[in-house]
Amino acid sequence: MPITSMNPALFAVFALTTIILSLKALFLGAATAATRGKLKSFLNAEDAAWLSGAHVDPDPEIVARIGRTHRNDLENLLLFAVCGLLYVLAGGSALAGFIYCGAFLVARTLHTIAYLGRRPMLRRNAYTIGFLVIVAMSLHGGWLIVSNLIG
Amino acid sequence: MPITSMNPALFAVFALTTIILSLKALFLGAATAATRGKLKSFLNAEDAAWLSGAHVDPDPEIVARIGRTHRNDLENLLLFAVCGLLYVLAGGSALAGFIYCGAFLVARTLHTIAYLGRRPMLRRNAYTIGFLVIVAMSLHGGWLIVSNLIG
Amino acid sequence: MPITSMNPALFAVFALTTIILSLKALFLGAATAATRGKLKSFLNAEDAAWLSGAHVDPDPEIVARIGRTHRNDLENLLLFAVCGLLYVLAGGSALAGFIYCGAFLVARTLHTIAYLGRRPMLRRNAYTIGFLVIVAMSLHGGWLIVSNLIG
Repeated sequence: MPITSMNPALFAVFALTTIILSLKALFLGAATAATRGKLKSFLNAEDAAWLSGAHVDPDPEIVARIGRTHRNDLENLLLFAVCGLLYVLAGGSALAGFIYCGAFLVARTLHTIAYLGRRPMLRRNAYTIGFLVIVAMSLHGGWLIVSNLIG
Repeated sequence: MPITSMNPALFAVFALTTIILSLKALFLGAATAATRGKLKSFLNAEDAAWLSGAHVDPDPEIVARIGRTHRNDLENLLLFAVCGLLYVLAGGSALAGFIYCGAFLVARTLHTIAYLGRRPMLRRNAYTIGFLVIVAMSLHGGWLIVSNLIG
Repeated sequence: MPITSMNPALFAVFALTTIILSLKALFLGAATAATRGKLKSFLNAEDAAWLSGAHVDPDPEIVARIGRTHRNDLENLLLFAVCGLLYVLAGGSALAGFIYCGAFLVARTLHTIAYLGRRPMLRRNAYTIGFLVIVAMSLHGGWLIVSNLIG
């Protein structure tokens, strides 16, 4: 049964990677709200009335940019967290798992820095590495699960 | 190994909290589609042609509002579900877990009520409580995982 | 304890379904970026400057359409992955689980085909089947978890 072969160190590394990136995404979400407050520009009319600001739609560029960074993070984190957990539960190799987690953590941190800092080449490269990690880990996990099933 | 110390009652409470909030988010998603149909205002040209309505972009305010409520729910539910499952799998304390789950369930329910009912102060407070639950549960889970690993 | 009654074949089928749909969503995400590049129309000013294209906001219709397909996929995949894993961990019946996974896989594949191919009736039906699978699997899983707890 897959569960019993789970590697505790891999679980720990995967969990910490996921927690760190979750907190990063959470703070990006809060940063869109905080930036709206600082600019006194609100997407909801009731917020503008409450906080004596302007009702603007769409968001100002900087808010929209943090929002895009946040959304891109969540889109990729969802797939990493789900496919990664399946990889760990399927008893995936710890060494390969450490590499997936490390590469994803670095790539997604650089992606945030590049998006907020308007560095498009770094952003594309960081996104691509994160993309490749999800593909590799998913195919690796899928292969393992099929092997466990028919092996 | 973390898995074996999972508390069954905590798993149950966490799972039920997550299922209830998933169904809430699912119905908010369906409500955007249903409201477009009721207003005969569609974001896709082919829907407008099919259902004899208007092709509007962006969505009418009420559809956009349900959409924002839905998106905010999913953004927070993703992080709660992922970090919460890691907390449960890591053998987190049941009592603290019950508090995290209860507070998150109440906060996110109030958030939906406040967003749809245009009550900005309640919405901000509910969002903040949900935010703090994710931070606390993630740090608590991360701490536990590090302790398990080196302990 | 729920974990120990997990069915290995159900875990495998659920994991493979989730991995296939994750890769589909991942490629839809990359397709929005690739289509922006092909049309030389970029949402970020720095991309337009870097790649000698136009800075457009909002995205061209075809990019926005792929983006909506992608977003709808992630919204539903999140709920399926989370509630499905809880169903599997709770020791859900394998036969019902196979049906949930098969129906969801077919429905969400058809949804993508219908959205990109502008076929609104097929899109609505595919969406509805995916929606019903999540509702059924969540209620089934929730019922099981309550039964395990009090049983």
